[in-house]
Amino acid sequence: MSFESFTHKVEYGELLAMVLRALTENGYDERIASPIARTIVDCERDGVSSHGLLRLPGFVESVRSGWADGRVLPSIVSESPSMRVVDARNGFTHLALEESRADLSAMARKTGTAILLIRNAHHFAALWPDIEGFADDGLLAFSCVNSRARVTAWGSEKPVFGTNASAFACPRAGGSPVVWDQAASVMSQGDILLASRDGRKLPAGVGVDRFGVPTDDPNAILDGGALQTFGGVKGASIAFMIEVLAAVLSGSVDGFDSQAQGTLPSKCGQFVLLIDSARAGVDVAVRVESLMKAAGVAGVNRTPGSRRYDRRAKSLADGIVITESARQLLEDLSAGQTKHRFS
Amino acid sequence: MSFESFTHKVEYGELLAMVLRALTENGYDERIASPIARTIVDCERDGVSSHGLLRLPGFVESVRSGWADGRVLPSIVSESPSMRVVDARNGFTHLALEESRADLSAMARKTGTAILLIRNAHHFAALWPDIEGFADDGLLAFSCVNSRARVTAWGSEKPVFGTNASAFACPRAGGSPVVWDQAASVMSQGDILLASRDGRKLPAGVGVDRFGVPTDDPNAILDGGALQTFGGVKGASIAFMIEVLAAVLSGSVDGFDSQAQGTLPSKCGQFVLLIDSARAGVDVAVRVESLMKAAGVAGVNRTPGSRRYDRRAKSLADGIVITESARQLLEDLSAGQTKHRFS
Repeated sequence: MSFESFTHKVEYGELLAMVLRALTENGYDERIASPIARTIVDCERDGVSSHGLLRLPGFVESVRSGWADGRVLPSIVSESPSMRVVDARNGFTHLALEESRADLSAMARKTGTAILLIRNAHHFAALWPDIEGFADDGLLAFSCVNSRARVTAWGSEKPVFGTNASAFACPRAGGSPVVWDQAASVMSQGDILLASRDGRKLPAGVGVDRFGVPTDDPNAILDGGALQTFGGVKGASIAFMIEVLAAVLSGSVDGFDSQAQGTLPSKCGQFVLLIDSARAGVDVAVRVESLMKAAGVAGVNRTPGSRRYDRRAKSLADGIVITESARQLLEDLSAGQTKHRFS
Repeated sequence: MSFESFTHKVEYGELLAMVLRALTENGYDERIASPIARTIVDCERDGVSSHGLLRLPGFVESVRSGWADGRVLPSIVSESPSMRVVDARNGFTHLALEESRADLSAMARKTGTAILLIRNAHHFAALWPDIEGFADDGLLAFSCVNSRARVTAWGSEKPVFGTNASAFACPRAGGSPVVWDQAASVMSQGDILLASRDGRKLPAGVGVDRFGVPTDDPNAILDGGALQTFGGVKGASIAFMIEVLAAVLSGSVDGFDSQAQGTLPSKCGQFVLLIDSARAGVDVAVRVESLMKAAGVAGVNRTPGSRRYDRRAKSLADGIVITESARQLLEDLSAGQTKHRFS
């Protein structure tokens, strides 16, 4: 057994404390670090390694370098009966969402629907942890975030759109909510980073190099290349809508404008839509259960979230498995060491 | 020149009157027929032949057969500050949307956003004509409709989702709105019908026959087969969200439940979301213009709606081109003849 493959089992609370410490020892206010640490640990718990501890060095470096602010608190810009706009002031989206969670739910229950727009923010975590809780409370939720320009648009030569993740959550009778979370690119930036780390080649159709030539090398994509949208022009339409909702509507700078202006990678925006089905006189959970049973008829249980829930149950029963190198990373970051690769 | 390829040029108003008469002579109340005729003629004007006159026999037959009601008026079921639910009572979505258009816009401008849900309805027209006008008025609009189960889900053996079209529209400074409209399947039912009519084979990956075997024959798909989602599992997630928003949330019966119960093809639902960017303190039109210019850098002008607008300008200047067989169809339908194939 190699050193790399040596693993540990840790309790959820224990890992959360380790991640929180790694952030607060590197420039993060504890209020800001808390929801970020939760989303990282939730991913490790659920086996989503592309968005778990792998992202921690990036979180640390983004604040250490001064690119993002780990101490600034979000402020409400404007509020309408069904819309709130929050300025994250170059901080992260997570505290902005946490602080608006209860109000946004109340707005949706009162008017039928509510939108939260977060501007001037950073979000490079998984998106599903942001909305799963709304569906636990019986609401429908959709969210999306933009990112720096990395993805081609309708045959463009240069990257125009971000990887532009979106996520949807709805209640399901007698079970955990159905939650999907996907990039508008064929493969997420996280999966490209993972392939690069592990020295793996990529399938065809995922991306192009800096010269616009298709490549299976994750490093060629990361080094000035671009990703491609899932489903061709239809995926590009989804990526465009997300760019408009998350970047433009929130009042952030979209990734393309940012790069065209030669500035640092853009601050992004987040769009969150809640819908209260009770206001429509409908209980969606029972019908969604019926639909999911129909979708599962082939026994190919690839329905959204099902693998996450399976791994979650195992992690909560047996502990979360982390590698020795991940444990070492946490220890080093907590001690302020900088030898790790930041991405 | 064959008889089939002989064409006529007609003015917009002239074609509208012909389509309107074909509907009112076949069981449609004029109030109900008017917005349907407009959407059919708008498609012919814009060169979207898959959703133009090709759909007229289906509209006629659906009322003649008693499947849909061409005379019933929609009624408001419930209203919240940002949500209205309308029961189309086995009629069509179009009048329900027309009658709520002004109120829905006013709700969005007051609260920031508004949702219209139409239940127990029929919608087999293009979706973009439903929302383009909202973007002309400066609003963002997203809409989706479900349909009878025709599309496989995450590897399911049977069709579960409808073709589940969605459309998005947003204002663009100094130009017509950016509007996309696409099925959640690789190819729309309309394009399958068109391929069948023209005897064309389909590309690979579009659908399977009644035994689940991939096929390039449109008739094999229409005859008990199923379509496949664009972009694999990511497209299936989009199709699922549309099913929940359009069918479940509206209080309609989703396509799968309908077919599982052995009933007629389901009445469907429509979901319409409006967002007022002015409430967020943002003018989206200028930023969208910048984004669209970036997306067009390759000169590959495949950006959404661009071809429709080109054809529209030509049609409005020179007249709308229709075939002799289309003219004959209109004449026959207006005279109550039934020899045409209904689909």
